Amino acid sequence: MPDSEFAGAQVLITGGLGFIGSSLARRLVFAGADVTLIDSLVPEYGGNLFNINDFKDRVRVNISDVRDRHAMAHLLTGKDFLFNLAGQTSHHDSMTDPFTDLDINATSQLAILEACRHHNPGIRLVFASTRQVYGKPTYLPVDEHHPLRPVDINGIHKLAGESYHLLYNDVYGLKAAVLRLTNTYGPGMRVRDARQTFLGVWLRRLLEGAPLEIFGDGAQLRDFNYVDDAVSAFLVAAIDPRAEGQVFNLGGQEHVDLRTLAERLTSLEPGGRFELVPFPAARKAIDIGDYYGNYSKLQSTLGWTPRVTLAEGLAQSVDFYRRHRAHYW
Amino acid sequence: MPDSEFAGAQVLITGGLGFIGSSLARRLVFAGADVTLIDSLVPEYGGNLFNINDFKDRVRVNISDVRDRHAMAHLLTGKDFLFNLAGQTSHHDSMTDPFTDLDINATSQLAILEACRHHNPGIRLVFASTRQVYGKPTYLPVDEHHPLRPVDINGIHKLAGESYHLLYNDVYGLKAAVLRLTNTYGPGMRVRDARQTFLGVWLRRLLEGAPLEIFGDGAQLRDFNYVDDAVSAFLVAAIDPRAEGQVFNLGGQEHVDLRTLAERLTSLEPGGRFELVPFPAARKAIDIGDYYGNYSKLQSTLGWTPRVTLAEGLAQSVDFYRRHRAHYW
Repeated sequence: MPDSEFAGAQVLITGGLGFIGSSLARRLVFAGADVTLIDSLVPEYGGNLFNINDFKDRVRVNISDVRDRHAMAHLLTGKDFLFNLAGQTSHHDSMTDPFTDLDINATSQLAILEACRHHNPGIRLVFASTRQVYGKPTYLPVDEHHPLRPVDINGIHKLAGESYHLLYNDVYGLKAAVLRLTNTYGPGMRVRDARQTFLGVWLRRLLEGAPLEIFGDGAQLRDFNYVDDAVSAFLVAAIDPRAEGQVFNLGGQEHVDLRTLAERLTSLEPGGRFELVPFPAARKAIDIGDYYGNYSKLQSTLGWTPRVTLAEGLAQSVDFYRRHRAHYW
Repeated sequence: MPDSEFAGAQVLITGGLGFIGSSLARRLVFAGADVTLIDSLVPEYGGNLFNINDFKDRVRVNISDVRDRHAMAHLLTGKDFLFNLAGQTSHHDSMTDPFTDLDINATSQLAILEACRHHNPGIRLVFASTRQVYGKPTYLPVDEHHPLRPVDINGIHKLAGESYHLLYNDVYGLKAAVLRLTNTYGPGMRVRDARQTFLGVWLRRLLEGAPLEIFGDGAQLRDFNYVDDAVSAFLVAAIDPRAEGQVFNLGGQEHVDLRTLAERLTSLEPGGRFELVPFPAARKAIDIGDYYGNYSKLQSTLGWTPRVTLAEGLAQSVDFYRRHRAHYW
């Protein structure tokens, strides 16, 4: 799918100043789309104005909360595409403050879809969901038929968010696709803490000369997508009618254990090191064990495949934060 | 399991003036339990004071909304069991007013569980869920491994409600079981409209001499539980440790198509008749097609089996509403 299919398209991105949202915006802007970003800039979330620094004069930025129904209704009108990436992403925060997670990941999604239904029923949507909806895998790699038993509040609400999108697709004729993301990483990710993924904190500690902390024994398996690959999945899911009403896993070219990942990452920086630390109890309680995803449905249906190797992606990420740490620390 | 295991137990029932809640209360009161009922008496829901008329001096009734967090915290304290039946049950209403459904079936459930966690973490809970979480069956009979793809807002929120219970069981040590009910019927059901089940309206029309309306061709398959059988499932799921953290389908002895059901019901009343009418569009859009449940997990794990035949249950129901229509019309 050439990006040029989006030339001239009216595009709205919620969470548009966030890590993936801004990367998606960049691709769309350079493809000639007319892009509006919505972001609340809630400090605990991923929004960062520096994420759009290189194209800030070519997008419209609307600072507002997706919970603001009137603003959403106005902003949705006339749009061809809605990339719906706004969300609370921290599993841990969802347990300590479950009602905020409910508000943002469920209530707001319902409000957005009601607004689409009433103000723009022909819109095409892609919703950013998460592998967290599966909970602890009962088999690997996890495909879309895997049972859904979230192990944290965030997973429950992201599942509700998904379900709304599929329902409004089926009942009201909106055209919605759902992507279940795994660990996405790359330039623009939040590195202040582990609220997006632990890899963010690892990158920061690496460049600060501090040891990377691995919870537990480091044998845990994970897969990863470089942000460019995730962005490609959003684009293809938005444009291809075969995505409508469908759920797709993303997934990495390879899966690695956390110790191996730490070894690879620390090799990119002189003096890089890591250490094993006991699993904090509150995190262990909601840990999902090993996970890696089967993305063959996305590959066979929409032709998506991850292209950036983990080695290349990690190198790009380290390079980015070496140059731009002032804006992310 | 003898009901006497509940003798002296401190029991709280949300939705306690409703159809199933009040039937459960009756069993528990006569078993010697100390029972408190919470009900909001929202007119569109199932609460009806006449449902406890025969034992009203032997229960405590607290008229309040489960959304009232302070009341819930107080009422939960010191209880051994919480039967959690409060809910918005209308599929149709959930589509026209999705935020109220969210509020009652998701937000309130989260609030109840947070209250349990903070004020009574040792409590045993049983949550009344629904077969609606499955959506349109992809195979029959539907077991607990069936994919979850709700076709209405109510199904999405009931699934969130279930998930909260399982999560708080797994993470915080509350002891929670989930029952997925199918069509439950019998004395005390709402007959004013179809908000609980279409069988309610059918019973009312039968006794009014009006034709029962079947949407579509009447070939649709359904299963049914007489309320006493549903109550037995709640009791066994509350008392048996093997139910903790588990989800169980209920299901009927037999499944019948709606035309056959209408024939059986109309044969119970002189002049009883039915007619086929076109499916209203708004209902067709969220219809699940054929459904009947596989309850072998509940049978093999907890020894539950439905005991009341459909013929006997329908006869009991018609008899009840003949005598008590003044309180339900």
